[in-house]
This record gives sequence, C-alpha cells and structure tokens, in this order.
Amino acid sequence: MAEKSSRGLADVIAASTALSDVDGSAGRLFYRGYDISQLAGAATFEEIAYLLQRGSAPSRAQLSGYREQIAAGRGLGSLVTACLPQVARSQKPMEALRSLVSLASADDPDKDSNDPEPNLRKAARLTAQQPVLVAAYADARQGRQGIQADPALGVAANFLLQITGSCPSEREAQIFDTCLVLHADHTMNASTFAARVCAATLSDMHSAIVAALGTLKGPLHGGANEQVMRGLEGIRAAAAGDPVEAVGAQVTARLRQGEKIMGFGHRVYKAEDPRAAYLRQYSGELGAASGDDTYYRMSRRMEEVVFAEKGLYPNVDFFAATVYHYLRIPTDLFTPVFSVSRMAGWTAHVMEQHADNRLIRPDSEYIGESGLTWLPLDAR
Amino acid sequence: MAEKSSRGLADVIAASTALSDVDGSAGRLFYRGYDISQLAGAATFEEIAYLLQRGSAPSRAQLSGYREQIAAGRGLGSLVTACLPQVARSQKPMEALRSLVSLASADDPDKDSNDPEPNLRKAARLTAQQPVLVAAYADARQGRQGIQADPALGVAANFLLQITGSCPSEREAQIFDTCLVLHADHTMNASTFAARVCAATLSDMHSAIVAALGTLKGPLHGGANEQVMRGLEGIRAAAAGDPVEAVGAQVTARLRQGEKIMGFGHRVYKAEDPRAAYLRQYSGELGAASGDDTYYRMSRRMEEVVFAEKGLYPNVDFFAATVYHYLRIPTDLFTPVFSVSRMAGWTAHVMEQHADNRLIRPDSEYIGESGLTWLPLDAR
Repeated sequence: MAEKSSRGLADVIAASTALSDVDGSAGRLFYRGYDISQLAGAATFEEIAYLLQRGSAPSRAQLSGYREQIAAGRGLGSLVTACLPQVARSQKPMEALRSLVSLASADDPDKDSNDPEPNLRKAARLTAQQPVLVAAYADARQGRQGIQADPALGVAANFLLQITGSCPSEREAQIFDTCLVLHADHTMNASTFAARVCAATLSDMHSAIVAALGTLKGPLHGGANEQVMRGLEGIRAAAAGDPVEAVGAQVTARLRQGEKIMGFGHRVYKAEDPRAAYLRQYSGELGAASGDDTYYRMSRRMEEVVFAEKGLYPNVDFFAATVYHYLRIPTDLFTPVFSVSRMAGWTAHVMEQHADNRLIRPDSEYIGESGLTWLPLDAR
Repeated sequence: MAEKSSRGLADVIAASTALSDVDGSAGRLFYRGYDISQLAGAATFEEIAYLLQRGSAPSRAQLSGYREQIAAGRGLGSLVTACLPQVARSQKPMEALRSLVSLASADDPDKDSNDPEPNLRKAARLTAQQPVLVAAYADARQGRQGIQADPALGVAANFLLQITGSCPSEREAQIFDTCLVLHADHTMNASTFAARVCAATLSDMHSAIVAALGTLKGPLHGGANEQVMRGLEGIRAAAAGDPVEAVGAQVTARLRQGEKIMGFGHRVYKAEDPRAAYLRQYSGELGAASGDDTYYRMSRRMEEVVFAEKGLYPNVDFFAATVYHYLRIPTDLFTPVFSVSRMAGWTAHVMEQHADNRLIRPDSEYIGESGLTWLPLDAR
C-alpha cells in the first residue's frame, strides 16, 4: 500500500467540492465561484443557502419560492415539541441542539430517502428549523412562551426578533444577514468533514447534521466565538482601570507564557481571513451605535497585540463574538448561531457527498505493542 | 502546499492508534497487540472493553471492579427515561439510539470534562448503557415494561435476557459474548473516524459517540448486517422450491447484472476477514441447535457463489446476520447490536484522540466554476 501520512490530515485532500474554495495565501473565500467580497452586503442568507444547496443564484421567482419553503419549514415537529421542555431544562445549548435535530428527523416526511429531491426539501427544512430551534430552546429554558415566527421576515430578521423579543432595526437585520452569509460554508472544516464522513456510509442527512453539530460544539471549532466573548467579559470585569489597557497587558503576558488566544490563527488562512474584515467593521459600527464600544476597542487592542507578538490574524470567530453581543444575542448561544448559518453549507455538502459517493475510510498507523500472548485471568 | 489526494481517503493514514491493527493481506486483526484468534472464545467482552479503554488486560480484581462499574452504569438517566416512550413510538432503531445517547449526556455526572478519569467513567457508562438502551427501546416501542437488568449477568447474557425475555443458555451467552468481542474495534472504520473527527475539536465523548452512531447507521457500514438478513428472508419467502437452490440462482443472476451483494468484500481485507470465520462456525452451530439451519445453508451457498463469481470473501456483517437471527434478536436491531460492541472501541478512540489531539481538518479540491460575477436579483 502506498501510504500517506499527515497528522490532522493537514494538506490532505479528502474530497472534491464545487461548493466553496479558499485561497489561503491571498485571504480569499469563494462560494460556488463567487468571491465573498461580492456577496457581503449584497446577497441575503436565503440567496446563499439556495446557491449552495441548488447550485446557482436564484431568480426572483426561485428566491420567492425558496423563502416560502423556509417560512413553511419553521414548524417544529411533534417529537421535538414533546421533548423540548425537558431538553431545555437539562442540556446546554449545543448539547440540546444535537438532541433536538436528532429528534427532528422523526417528523420529517422525507426522512427515509437520500434522493436529490427529498434531500433538497430536508435541506430547506433544516435551514428553516435551526434558528427556530435555537430561539425555542432559549425560551423553553426560561419557561417563556416565546414569540411566534413572522412568515414575512427572512431568516436573519426573524431570528433576531425571536431571540431578543423585539423587532431588529433594518440595519441590525442587514448586518446579521451578512454574518449568516459569511459563515454559510467553508470547505472541509471539521464539522463539514464529519457530516461528509457520516453521509458517505449513505446514512441520512439528519444523522450527518447531528454529527456536524456535535463536532462544531468543540472549543477548537465553533465553540471559539463564545470563548472569545467570555475572555473579553472576564478581563473587563476584573480590570481595575481602562479595560482596553488591561486587555493589552494581559494578552501580552499570556502570549509570552506560551498560551493560545482564542479567535486567532487558522489552519488554512495565512493572510487575513476575509470574513474577519467585514465582522470587524460591523463590530465597530454596532458598538458605536450601542453607545458603549468598549468590547470593540478591547478587541482591536487584542488584535494589535497578538499580531505584534505572534503575527497571527483574527479568524472568523473573533469579531463575530462582539457583533453578536451588540445584537443582544446571549453569549452561550453564539455557537448555535454559527450552526444556523453553517446549516446551509452542511446540507449542501451532504447532498454533494450523496451525489457522487465513496465511503470515507482512511487507514491508521499502528503504534502499539505487538505479538502479545493472552494469558488466562488468574495468570495476569 | 504539498497536496495529497485520495478518494475516500483510501490508503491515507488519518491517525495513529495503539488500539487495533489489521493485516489485510494476511487476514489478521489485533486488539492492542493480541491477535483476535487468541481472544475469540477465551476473553469476555468486559475484558476486551477494559483492554481497549484502559490499555492492558485486567487482573481478576480489576475485572471485577469493571464489571461492577458496568452493572452500576446501566441505569438510564431522567432525560432518557422521560423522552423514551415518544422516541420509541416515532423513531427507527438507529435514529432512536442517536437521539437517546444524545439525551443521555444530560444525566452523566462527568459530562463537562474531557480529562482522562472522567472520560474513563463515561466510557464505562456508555458501554453499560448501550445494550440497555437497545432493550429499553425494543420494549418501549411495543408498550412493554420490559425485564430489569440482572446485575449478576455480564453484558452479553444480560442483553440476551432483556431482548428476548428469557435467560439464554450458557452456550448462547458465550457465543454472543464472542460476537461482541469480534466487533469491539476495527481501526479507522467510518464510524470510529467520525468519532475522532468530532473529538478532535475537543468536543465531548457523547458528541463523538452520537456522530459514530449516525455514521454506523448507513447501509455501507453498520446497516449491512440487517440488509443481509432481509435479503435471506426475502429469497426464502419467495422461493418456490429449495431456498438454498433459489439463493444460488438469484445471487448468480444479480452478480452477472453487476449488482453488489451486501456482506461481501472489505476496504481493508484482501484475504478472508478473520472475524467471519468465527461467525460462520457460530451460525452453523446455532442453526443446527435451532432445528432449522436453512438460513445457514443459504448463507453458505451464497458465499460459494460470490466467491466463484467475484472472488470476494464474506465480511463481518455476513454471518453476524444469521447468528443474531438464531439468537432471536429482532432483525431491525442488528445494527444496534453492532453499536453495543463497537462502543468499547469508539470510546477508547475518543480517549486516544483527546490524549494527543490535533484538529482533523483536511483540504478539499475545488471542482466548481470560478470568477463568477454576482448579479443583482433582477438581472438574473
């Protein structure tokens, strides 16, 4: 066997995809051939979900049909509804979403097929349901009834309505919509790869998405945005004087002790992550509009220090944290918000895997003992 | 970047492991350096789960402690208990297990830690709970109360007791115990790999196991044993004359039409899968003891025909099907039984990944369009 080894599969091509592409040295990201610099602020999340799931940018009529499909797909099924109160009481956000999406397959009319049309319908339903699940979980854990989804609103505005309890401003909805666009897909990241490994056994879309959710949960992946915010909150709460000065001093000290700082560096980007530039701008804008841009200014200082000390750029998680904070999203729902947007890409990857499948079954290198003799119990 | 490409990651080393090793050309499988030919019939499932999870064969005292841990870990938590009736009514077996294990994390006292000791306790609990979950699901979907676990019995005998409603013979329990041993681990199979991809984001053990369960569900992986039995049942039911003759004719015809036959061939083994030889023997023995060995004889004919036509050997799923059938396990629970045994290996792989972690994040090859211009909605 011609064996190729690479820890963490760095630089190993695991799959072909027509969904997204990264030019890590130039710091560019493309969805189906469109540079995200063309899409940020110009395309809605629904257009991008359609583009990823269906292969081309929708016409006005196609987009209108897809938006209707999304609005109609928001209802939570009977099994989710029955279990939600207990789940919300006893599981944390990503743990709960893993359970709830697993439960949701029960009520999906297309659950038993991996064919293209049923898969497209499931992809739209999963994309529609995910933000509603996050909001319903947030309400249920506080024993609140919650706000009904508004069928006239798109994914971004409706989510902000349901999660904050009040209608977002047009600009807030627009910024959040672009956040969803920026997080919609990113080649073979760990959660997407987990979804494809699962789908490649010809398992179903819900199983693959549940695998992705459990993978996104990890602090080295989706969990990073929440940790960035917790870090900023902790430093601000403990700062005797100016928290911007405090963050500079503390991050410098931690870096010099060899600690890693969450939200910096990326396996693929060597230049700046192009998504971070948009999120930085939105963080500044929303911080100023909120009347207290301390967290934005702390983030900027942190960025300066990390670059000066380590030459690392912020990644997509870093400024997403303060953007979501300024949009009044509870900190422990930041990773769930990541899942709301990435659902577009995950579902598209599952369909791409099913369309031209081969089992993903790597080799391993054995590093243990060999030639041992199994002794009877009393001889050990 | 030095890129290496391989569809399905065939022949790519994705991880180092000290848990198991396969010599595909010699048809040999090793657990931590012990050839399974030494273990089959000589070691119990608990000894092998201990070996995989803890690194060495247990002494009598260690084994006794582990068996107590397993017996104590069988209780289903409050969230699982609350949701089980509805889950069992509306989800199929693997779908339900994916949900139930996700729900089970809620009541695990070690849920929030990936440290070695908490992980070892979670591994034992997950190993203890999985057979009980399968039996509880089987009871709940029929509205039965079910049989309490017997703390004096090991995993194999207790599972047969709970699933069939009657105490197995000593020989039945022994054979099933060896079936669990034979399925306990198998290097970087798709579900194990999914678990490691998940764990490598430093997500938790339950998330990784849920990813593995969803992956095992696919018909190209764990789903194969059930399909083997369904195929045999279908041919027997439709056969006008001798079902052994019928299976020979039908399989020959299907192979000549280019169809694949479930239960044959393996990505890794080029010689006979060493597990299949034991399972063949047990299928024959249990078939004879049952007074109707038709399915065994059908399997043997099928094996002859597939080898003659294609040169393919049966894999682990092929004779497992009839063994489980003769043990009176319902056919739609065959893949869940696979999960009962593989839980030993999955949990051990999660611990191995956490102990020396690197994010598993491969590259992808972009095969889509490029340089597209995003047009305004009305210009599309």
